[in-house]
Amino acid sequence: MNKKILILPGDYIGTEIMAEAVKVLELLKAEGEKIEWSFGHLGGAAYDAEGHPYPPSTQKAACEADAILMGAVGGPKYDSLPRAVRPEQGILGIRKDLGLFANLRPALAYEELAAASSFKPEVIAGLDILILRELTGDIYFGQPRGRRSNAEGAEEGYDTMHYSRPEVERIAHVAFQAAQKRNKRLCSVDKENVLETSRLWREVVIEVGKQYPDVALSHMYVDNAAMQLVKNPKQFDVIVTGNIFGDILSDEASMLAGSIGMLPSASLDVNNKGLYEPIHGSAPDIAGQGKANPLATILSVGMMFRYTFNRADLADRIDAAVKQVLRQGKRTGDIAQPGERIIGTKEMGDAVVAAL
Amino acid sequence: MNKKILILPGDYIGTEIMAEAVKVLELLKAEGEKIEWSFGHLGGAAYDAEGHPYPPSTQKAACEADAILMGAVGGPKYDSLPRAVRPEQGILGIRKDLGLFANLRPALAYEELAAASSFKPEVIAGLDILILRELTGDIYFGQPRGRRSNAEGAEEGYDTMHYSRPEVERIAHVAFQAAQKRNKRLCSVDKENVLETSRLWREVVIEVGKQYPDVALSHMYVDNAAMQLVKNPKQFDVIVTGNIFGDILSDEASMLAGSIGMLPSASLDVNNKGLYEPIHGSAPDIAGQGKANPLATILSVGMMFRYTFNRADLADRIDAAVKQVLRQGKRTGDIAQPGERIIGTKEMGDAVVAAL
Ligand SMILES: CC(C)[C@H](C(=O)O)[C@@H](O)C(=O)O
Ligand SMILES: CC(C)[C@H](C(=O)O)[C@@H](O)C(=O)O
Repeated sequence: MNKKILILPGDYIGTEIMAEAVKVLELLKAEGEKIEWSFGHLGGAAYDAEGHPYPPSTQKAACEADAILMGAVGGPKYDSLPRAVRPEQGILGIRKDLGLFANLRPALAYEELAAASSFKPEVIAGLDILILRELTGDIYFGQPRGRRSNAEGAEEGYDTMHYSRPEVERIAHVAFQAAQKRNKRLCSVDKENVLETSRLWREVVIEVGKQYPDVALSHMYVDNAAMQLVKNPKQFDVIVTGNIFGDILSDEASMLAGSIGMLPSASLDVNNKGLYEPIHGSAPDIAGQGKANPLATILSVGMMFRYTFNRADLADRIDAAVKQVLRQGKRTGDIAQPGERIIGTKEMGDAVVAAL
Repeated sequence: MNKKILILPGDYIGTEIMAEAVKVLELLKAEGEKIEWSFGHLGGAAYDAEGHPYPPSTQKAACEADAILMGAVGGPKYDSLPRAVRPEQGILGIRKDLGLFANLRPALAYEELAAASSFKPEVIAGLDILILRELTGDIYFGQPRGRRSNAEGAEEGYDTMHYSRPEVERIAHVAFQAAQKRNKRLCSVDKENVLETSRLWREVVIEVGKQYPDVALSHMYVDNAAMQLVKNPKQFDVIVTGNIFGDILSDEASMLAGSIGMLPSASLDVNNKGLYEPIHGSAPDIAGQGKANPLATILSVGMMFRYTFNRADLADRIDAAVKQVLRQGKRTGDIAQPGERIIGTKEMGDAVVAAL
């Protein structure tokens, strides 16, 4: 039976970068891979078409799919919508609805792009870290939340941060197993000196760690982690943390790679069904101009084959093809240095397909 | 009448770096400045002496003082104490007790130390940003917090994030006024696309901003801010944010300065009474060896004269003296390059006093 992929291009550059990812899928299908795909709406595009950022049609298709490939959602067109139908709610909705609790964000420094980085070459050369962010708990979904009058009668806004033992256990298992396949070092990031949520987090991570004696576990406060990521990122192998700290640290770490245009991500459920997306946004400023960098989306296709379809061979081929086009000097605007020839989205996609 | 300074050296290197700051105070007093000081305990030292990290004696002295100078607290000796008496509770206690809601953390890149930074020189050359962190609200002090059984009967840890209108108003005023004295640009950092607390935060900041039409106000999500600080830090002038986001971003930003050993901070109440401290920790690994960098503590003395005593002239002199010793090539271990001669804590303190 064919593996079913649901494609959600999303907003602004989303459709442009996804078109290049589809070229990769087409090539693999032509080679005989048993895959098929269909398209759906998420975010602003879904609001435009069906009045909701995560409409029932998308929900149904997402449940039936084996994997989901997403472009990027959001943008100025939707900024003034009521919060409940803003594009972000589409992302948060699909994550929660499908139970995509494990967000894998590799940060890899491509030698060829060292010039594009704010960091000194020696700081990032050879960098290869994996940030594992819990994606369906924490302050993102905690109840109660809202507005109320505080003890002094003043209006206040409030949210609830929380993690339960099973939530921490399952992300911890993913983290230790990921570390086992890599350099066997796991750093758990929390704010245990201040937060009750973090105290439970740390307790449970330590407990789960007893089942993985081959992995060296360490703990770091989130403020220190934000500093160490910049000071000496190569000290890390796998980092595991909660939803909000992971949001912040993984975006920070993306800069170690030179450009956010290079970084894919995977969000997995308990069965390794996953949603794959570039970590960059919908880039309204360059939308419709054929300028966007499709590599993070193409690398997301690679992650899909690696994690959901268990085809490390194809993932490795895609990763290698991307490295090859970089070595060939192909550069979209975001990764080009002054004086380098800049190519467009399509040309970059074609180059990867050729390299494949 | 003499201005009263309470000195809280704290733990590990705290006493060593404070001894150098006192030399600066002694010089200024000898010059005729009307200041006097006394010593007290905070953190682990206070626990050792009086059984509590913020004991009544310190509380009384802190209330009576015009300003407080702190070294650094915490360390392995105290890590296994019950949470209620851990050194961090001393810091959190004094902040909350004295209403020190406005935490000013300048991040300045010293030209002389560019070699010590992970960043390319062009990224940080001339960098001068101010991070303003709200320090007495947010998830640090929110109630309820603790452990409970969730709807599924699983144990969970939880905390409450919250900000009230007056809390946001007062930090916003400090931020706009700081921006007015600088380059008139203020960036407010929140997570308004997800958090109710941030929605209120953003609303209030916009409202307060109407009273400061000369300041250009912008807003940024915290994940993006973590990225932009690394990508292009010079885009910022003043950043204002809540307690937990500020904790993370200011530590990240400290690395832009090359070493955390160079950065002072001020925590002010509504009357500009303040607690001044280096942002680095108590460095147990090098404690007692006379190696620690006292410059951040000495620069904290400068901030005290600037913000609480309204003596920008003395603050400028101290800042200039620190720059001069750097130009003279004086380096403690944390800011030295391979091959450079390393001096000790005392020698560095003496060099600043000589430069003064
Ligand atoms: C759009 C937003 C809700 C989302 C998040 O905070 O999770 C984004 O920043 C991300 O990291 O995917
Ligand atoms: C020690 C800790 C409680 C404290 C904080 O988180 O505020 C520290 O990290 C700081 O930034 O001063």
